[in-house]
Amino acid sequence: MIDELIERMLKGDKRATARLITLVENDEEKAREIVKKVYPYTGNAYIVGITGPPGSGKSTLVDKLIKKARDEGKIVGVIAIDPTSPFTGGALLGDRIRMQRHSTDPGVFIRSMATRGSLGGLAKATNDAIKILDAYGCDVIFVETVGVGQIEVDIVKTADTVVLVTVPGLGDDIQAIKAGLMEIADIFVVNKADKEGAEATIFELELMLDLEKGKWEKRGWRPPIVSTVAFTNKGIDQLWEAINKHRDFLLESGEIEKKIKFRVEEEIKAIVSSTIARKIGEMMGDNEISQLIEKIANREIDPYSAADLVLEKALGVKV
Amino acid sequence: MIDELIERMLKGDKRATARLITLVENDEEKAREIVKKVYPYTGNAYIVGITGPPGSGKSTLVDKLIKKARDEGKIVGVIAIDPTSPFTGGALLGDRIRMQRHSTDPGVFIRSMATRGSLGGLAKATNDAIKILDAYGCDVIFVETVGVGQIEVDIVKTADTVVLVTVPGLGDDIQAIKAGLMEIADIFVVNKADKEGAEATIFELELMLDLEKGKWEKRGWRPPIVSTVAFTNKGIDQLWEAINKHRDFLLESGEIEKKIKFRVEEEIKAIVSSTIARKIGEMMGDNEISQLIEKIANREIDPYSAADLVLEKALGVKV
Repeated sequence: MIDELIERMLKGDKRATARLITLVENDEEKAREIVKKVYPYTGNAYIVGITGPPGSGKSTLVDKLIKKARDEGKIVGVIAIDPTSPFTGGALLGDRIRMQRHSTDPGVFIRSMATRGSLGGLAKATNDAIKILDAYGCDVIFVETVGVGQIEVDIVKTADTVVLVTVPGLGDDIQAIKAGLMEIADIFVVNKADKEGAEATIFELELMLDLEKGKWEKRGWRPPIVSTVAFTNKGIDQLWEAINKHRDFLLESGEIEKKIKFRVEEEIKAIVSSTIARKIGEMMGDNEISQLIEKIANREIDPYSAADLVLEKALGVKV
Repeated sequence: MIDELIERMLKGDKRATARLITLVENDEEKAREIVKKVYPYTGNAYIVGITGPPGSGKSTLVDKLIKKARDEGKIVGVIAIDPTSPFTGGALLGDRIRMQRHSTDPGVFIRSMATRGSLGGLAKATNDAIKILDAYGCDVIFVETVGVGQIEVDIVKTADTVVLVTVPGLGDDIQAIKAGLMEIADIFVVNKADKEGAEATIFELELMLDLEKGKWEKRGWRPPIVSTVAFTNKGIDQLWEAINKHRDFLLESGEIEKKIKFRVEEEIKAIVSSTIARKIGEMMGDNEISQLIEKIANREIDPYSAADLVLEKALGVKV
């Protein structure tokens, strides 16, 4: 069945592609088989990560970027990571629906992911889906996550180009950007730039970037700040140009190798964590483990020593 | 040094306690040693998880709950998980500062955590800090996380009582709660209940709960909805009462055992994931692994097969 699905996917069948992604999301063994088989067909797609706070208009930006890429004849993939929270679901939903106008275009594949479960699970499923879309023929894959939450930020960090979207009026948050996502951003976007405070936001970002002048000179890339009004298409050309410029920079400077190396490392970590978490999850019903858990609860053994025993039992090895 | 710190902590020394938490956050080996040693002194603290969207006033609520617990002579711990995002940092900071008015009270220990790094790292560090505060003598520990992000939600899920805070005017988000955090909430709070739309929010929540009547009857606990205005203290008595009622329910029904079992299971998973992630992280600089990563990048080997090799090398075992 998997071979047939892959064959159909390689011929451009969207339904087979969707089915493969569902399989990698839900079935660890099948994920393994699928990724092994599609891996030789990957390596073409350029990965653009888009992150920012809820309500910053990320999905609308992606919607417009899809159009730019399509105008150039590119095949486009979108992976939208739903936060596992209820609180932003509504807003995202609306944006996603808007984005779906592309869904009848055979050159656009949009997928939402909300895999829960084991540690490493969401990162692993996203990596696997990227591979499938890459093999499907996507030239560019947009990975959209909300910029809150450790896993969600870690996922976007592995993209080739990371676009950090902010909006005017977040005030103090510029200070926080300094401490937080600053170092992962290749491009800053100030969206909803028609709103009050947009100029101040841009000014503060510029100041912040100025503080790190030496770093940018050494790296050969200073993150540009692009102001956009995604709804009216303002600034989208500039953003698309900035993404392409960053891509050129990565290729010419050889920095792309570092990006790929980092991504592969993170990917291995996600697979290993997910594999181990699954093995341990399976064991939790086990009688021996139940007894162990009882012992922990009764303070007869501490959790670290118990974890060693579980790992030993799961893998048949002393750690 | 650790023995001396633990001795001082057990005598109620806050600085020694803070130092121990810093050690478990930053040093895996020391975390192991510390948790093993403090574990026999734990098991007293009741853990209350508080989660909700940025800006819902979680920290103000916790601030007021600290006061309630202190009025009853309880020793209180607070672990506030900072989102790894810049976008909410500002607002949280203000609230945290407000909360700090308790910091001169020897009966209150407040700690922010923002450990990044390996998968499982934040969950593990939080668990370890809970143990230390438990051994320190805390009767109740509030664990506050933003309700966005897989790890952040997973952490709060392991509390004895989970309080889900929402605010009026999130609109469609009630729909999303259904799909999302509904099943983890033991108590719903509608904070900022003086704002427009509060009644509608409560009404919608009640409707939502009504749909699951059978479930609540079977369980013997229907999540109450408490409306609060944390700033003016309105509803705080009721919330504190609801928390205590839920605690009584857990103890009388024996459900507490399930909660503890779940927490211990999650804890073991976090320790194992973190241990493995660390081992693998350490190996990434390794020559053999560098070659492996190059092979993956060149599509000579797929990431799953590579992960197996890495795991084999890390643990000396075939998986």
